[in-house]
Amino acid sequence: MKKYQRLAQQITEQIALGVWEPGDRLPSLREQVVSSGMSFMTVGHAYQLLESQGRIIARPQSGYYVAPRPVRQTPAMPPEQVMRDESVDINTYIFEVLQASRDAAVLPFASAFPDPRLFPLQQLNRSLAQVSKTATAMSVIENLPPGNAELRHAIARRYALQGMNISPDEIVITAGALEALNLSLQAVTEPGDWVIVENPCFYGALQALERLKLKALSVASDVKEGIDMDALAQALRDYPVKACWLMTNSQNPLGFTLSPEKKAQLVALLTTHNVMLIEDDVYSELYFGREKPLPAKAWDRDDMTLHCSSFSKCLVPGFRIGWVAAGKHARRIQHLQLMSTLSTSSPMQLALVDYLATKRYDAHLRRLRRQLAERKQLAWQSLLRHLPAEVKIHHNDSGYFLWLELPVGVDAGELSAKALAQHISIAPGKMFSTTNSWASFFRFNTAWGWDEREENAVKVLGALIRELIKK
Amino acid sequence: MKKYQRLAQQITEQIALGVWEPGDRLPSLREQVVSSGMSFMTVGHAYQLLESQGRIIARPQSGYYVAPRPVRQTPAMPPEQVMRDESVDINTYIFEVLQASRDAAVLPFASAFPDPRLFPLQQLNRSLAQVSKTATAMSVIENLPPGNAELRHAIARRYALQGMNISPDEIVITAGALEALNLSLQAVTEPGDWVIVENPCFYGALQALERLKLKALSVASDVKEGIDMDALAQALRDYPVKACWLMTNSQNPLGFTLSPEKKAQLVALLTTHNVMLIEDDVYSELYFGREKPLPAKAWDRDDMTLHCSSFSKCLVPGFRIGWVAAGKHARRIQHLQLMSTLSTSSPMQLALVDYLATKRYDAHLRRLRRQLAERKQLAWQSLLRHLPAEVKIHHNDSGYFLWLELPVGVDAGELSAKALAQHISIAPGKMFSTTNSWASFFRFNTAWGWDEREENAVKVLGALIRELIKK
Repeated sequence: MKKYQRLAQQITEQIALGVWEPGDRLPSLREQVVSSGMSFMTVGHAYQLLESQGRIIARPQSGYYVAPRPVRQTPAMPPEQVMRDESVDINTYIFEVLQASRDAAVLPFASAFPDPRLFPLQQLNRSLAQVSKTATAMSVIENLPPGNAELRHAIARRYALQGMNISPDEIVITAGALEALNLSLQAVTEPGDWVIVENPCFYGALQALERLKLKALSVASDVKEGIDMDALAQALRDYPVKACWLMTNSQNPLGFTLSPEKKAQLVALLTTHNVMLIEDDVYSELYFGREKPLPAKAWDRDDMTLHCSSFSKCLVPGFRIGWVAAGKHARRIQHLQLMSTLSTSSPMQLALVDYLATKRYDAHLRRLRRQLAERKQLAWQSLLRHLPAEVKIHHNDSGYFLWLELPVGVDAGELSAKALAQHISIAPGKMFSTTNSWASFFRFNTAWGWDEREENAVKVLGALIRELIKK
Repeated sequence: MKKYQRLAQQITEQIALGVWEPGDRLPSLREQVVSSGMSFMTVGHAYQLLESQGRIIARPQSGYYVAPRPVRQTPAMPPEQVMRDESVDINTYIFEVLQASRDAAVLPFASAFPDPRLFPLQQLNRSLAQVSKTATAMSVIENLPPGNAELRHAIARRYALQGMNISPDEIVITAGALEALNLSLQAVTEPGDWVIVENPCFYGALQALERLKLKALSVASDVKEGIDMDALAQALRDYPVKACWLMTNSQNPLGFTLSPEKKAQLVALLTTHNVMLIEDDVYSELYFGREKPLPAKAWDRDDMTLHCSSFSKCLVPGFRIGWVAAGKHARRIQHLQLMSTLSTSSPMQLALVDYLATKRYDAHLRRLRRQLAERKQLAWQSLLRHLPAEVKIHHNDSGYFLWLELPVGVDAGELSAKALAQHISIAPGKMFSTTNSWASFFRFNTAWGWDEREENAVKVLGALIRELIKK
């Protein structure tokens, strides 16, 4: 094959791969000559060949463009379905469910995020614009771990308003709470260690344990009361546990908030056993009552708690800004961060600093809490209306999840697959556990507004459940 | 202690911790009442007490402010020095060196970054401003792994211009190349596996291996010729190696670029042994010659290479945007990313898309390469002028590092400590190896401009080296 034929073939492949799409301008002859090191003659021949094959089109005074794709009748494809094969590993399953819920055509009841339209986009964009005016070349380096000093300060002040004395130096800014949690877990464990999680729990905890080759001890959690303290005490007595990863406020997926007494008890128990608490507190701002609940860390006098949170669930997920209040572990966590992602992006930190300085955050949070409460109410009413009476809807006064319980024997995974075929996503219980105890449960996100489309989707869900009950 | 005394004490502690700094406005009485749940009376008493203690100052019509700190004579402290205790683990040592090089008072010859003033801040800020006008609420969710589609497209096109056919679907956007490399390594190994690295190599590789509990096989690399192929072949024969992490262009710290023949040979050898190549190619745009060198991946026909790169060393470090062209491993890497950092921040990806669309990137790169070459030349000349003749300066035509060799017996770690005491940082050889073979070497960053201050610093380095030689 001659040189120009090889180049033409290469470009043909690139078009097939989607590197150049129909309508895209190809590199000019000159650009192609410079980048390929071939002669004008060779590149010219290659382009002529492609033109003669109808793959590209020359537009005078403009350049070469990829030709439109030939119109072809594609057979109607069945909608992509989540695999229900139990041999599929849990991560793939979670991945599939989450990917499906991102499709704009699918109702995102499976989503872990609130509707981003609830967030102050305009204000945040204004802060971003402000950063674009003031960012300096050096700001990059100033924001390496532990992260921007002003942002850590602002976070410390929010703790202070809750009566918690946390120095900005104990805080490390991370890529969302997920990085904070992962780094925290890694900071206090070695592969093979035992770690306590709740059953059910946020799937990110199970994934982190798997990723770090840790062994999970699942302790039962009640939909209203939270973790079973007797079972926890038992686990701590029977196993050499290193850490305990819990959600104390608006637990995901159940929704409970631990009582102050239970938080105090939890901290005391873990401290007695010298077990670190990794506290996932991403929903702390989404309470419905009068007062923001304290994290368990507020009861910790011995620096045994790594408190992880973020702005992702209450202000802006896309910035990927979270943090951990890590006490004496802050340094170790910075090391781990320097080794894995190096740092959080600097303009994002600066934009948050700017936004927080506008003092609009609390007003936004008040509005957000009200809207989430209203939407949850609407979703709850609709589910009560349209789902069969045998379905139990567990309800908590915070956050934006409902936890639904199908009649015994009805599989939520099967419901999920059938629902997805009709462009409705839900989060089946098996995403949240290593055991099979939650097969007939699912999590329902109520934060995405409520309209005819949602109402109809719930009707469809109701019909699907009735079918499954009959089987 | 009464309630108001407790609150006053808490605020005193917060001031001591730096949560509230001198001159900061404290929360108003009303804000404090809302957040603490205490009565106006209690909060008012607490503020009065603090005022009477001189800790806070009331300004009429404005609020309460933290009082200035009492002026105190602080004894002159010796400049912080890097610990030379060999028992200090390598990560702590690397951390200390890097932290020291961030201090604006210290000359950053130890830095891994080029001078950010070489980057097109104005253009990038313009792109950021553009994003602040066009970002939508939903853009968050559209940019979950594998990352923004347009950005992956733009990267695929840059590969295409080098004649490499890589589909946008094989590319995953990451938090800089470091996340790309870490995820790649994790995707193809299990704890306990053997991984080949170069000796010396980028310390990030050693840290990643340690973090993932992998076993390192160090293969000697030559300052001009790169990795010793015979030693590599031997290692592959003798050990069940799973992956090989190499830099093929402008290797850090040595600076060599592997010849095309050696790249081809490398890929063939690794493919024969079914060993994955994790190719760290962060300096690929910083060549000084006419043509951008190809990565080893260009010779890979069997999807055995995970090619990692980023915009951090050639455009903008603070955005933290890198990628991996991962072929069939792209999906596994997305899973791992969803578990650890979830995704890269969305406005940063959008800003890069906007910047790349301006078509100024290549002009910037041409200018950057010219400036780096000039600066390297200046630094080299200065080092030749002021360092004793016994110091060997290894020079390569790309990137912005020089690799310096002190006379046998002179310890670069000792030089580093002494230099740092005079506010000059260098990167000692022991940062780049698990063996002790590079004790008398150091890496010198030439990308930070060259002026009187730098010239003087090199004179100081020269004097320090002469002292160490005499000892």
